[in-house]
Amino acid sequence: MNQTAPLKDEHTVIHSTFTIERTYPQSPARVFHAFADKATVRRWRVEGDGFAIAEFSFDFRVGGGEVSRFSYGGGPEIRLDAQFQDIVPDQRIVFSYRMAIGQQAMSASLTTVELTPDDGGTRLTYTEQGAFFDGVDSAKGREEGTRGLLEALAVELQRSK
Amino acid sequence: MNQTAPLKDEHTVIHSTFTIERTYPQSPARVFHAFADKATVRRWRVEGDGFAIAEFSFDFRVGGGEVSRFSYGGGPEIRLDAQFQDIVPDQRIVFSYRMAIGQQAMSASLTTVELTPDDGGTRLTYTEQGAFFDGVDSAKGREEGTRGLLEALAVELQRSK
Repeated sequence: MNQTAPLKDEHTVIHSTFTIERTYPQSPARVFHAFADKATVRRWRVEGDGFAIAEFSFDFRVGGGEVSRFSYGGGPEIRLDAQFQDIVPDQRIVFSYRMAIGQQAMSASLTTVELTPDDGGTRLTYTEQGAFFDGVDSAKGREEGTRGLLEALAVELQRSK
Repeated sequence: MNQTAPLKDEHTVIHSTFTIERTYPQSPARVFHAFADKATVRRWRVEGDGFAIAEFSFDFRVGGGEVSRFSYGGGPEIRLDAQFQDIVPDQRIVFSYRMAIGQQAMSASLTTVELTPDDGGTRLTYTEQGAFFDGVDSAKGREEGTRGLLEALAVELQRSK
C-alpha cells in the first residue's frame, strides 16, 4: 500500500511492546473459540456502533489471515491485514497485522495471545510488539484500544453459550 | 504448520526485542536494493556454504512475501515465511516472518529496517521484535545470527557495483 511516494515527509518509527493480563470465568476452549470462529470474531471485535464494515474476510490457520476494511462515522477507510503465524489449539494464537488509514500506513504489529487454565477459568496474556509509523498512530492509543477489545470479549463470552 | 497436535508438551513464549545499528559506505539506494532485489537477497542472505536451498520465492511489495526452505549439512528442513508490511523506498522496510524446523514452530518476528543517509553512506538500524516458542530457538542466537547477516550484507555491497 505504501510503496508509492510517501504521504508524510518525515519517516519515523516508534517501537513499543505492551502486555495486558486479564482473566475470564470461561474455559480456555471457549476463549480460544472466540478468537478462532469467524462469526464470533466479527461480533466482538469488528462490529460496533458507528462502524460501517466494507469487508471482513477471515481464514484461521497458519498461512491464512484476515482483511477488515471499515470506517467510523463517515470517516476515511481503515484497513487491517492480519496473518496467522502460530496456532496451538486452546493455548496460543500468534498473528501479525498492519493497519492503514486511507493510503497512510499506521502500524505493523506482532501479537501473542496466551491462554492458561486459571481456577476453572482462563488467564489471557495479550502481548503486542508494535512498530508505529510516522506519528500517525500511537502505542498508548493501541494499548487503550486493546483493553476495550478485551472488555468486549468479556461481554461476548457472557452472551454466547 | 503448527495446527496439529503440539510436538512439545510445554508451551512457552519468550518475547524479546533487539536493535543493531551499523553503517555502510554505500548509499541508502544501494542498501535498499540489496533488500529488494531477489537475486541479490538470495546471494547474501539465503545461500551459504553447507546450505541446501529447496525453495526461494520472493515478492517484494506490501502484501507480498518470501518463502525459503533450506537445510544445513543434511539436517532437517528449516522454513521461513515472511510478509512485507511496509515499504518506503530507500528508507524503510518492515516485514514479519515465522520460522519452523521440521514441523516445530520456532519463532515469529516483526523486523524494521531503517536507512538514513550518513556522511555519504548509510546508517542501518535493524530492530527485531520477536516471539520465541517453546524453547526451540533463542533470542540471543537470533541477534548473533543477524549480526552475521549484516556482515554478509557488507561483503555483498562491496562486491556488487
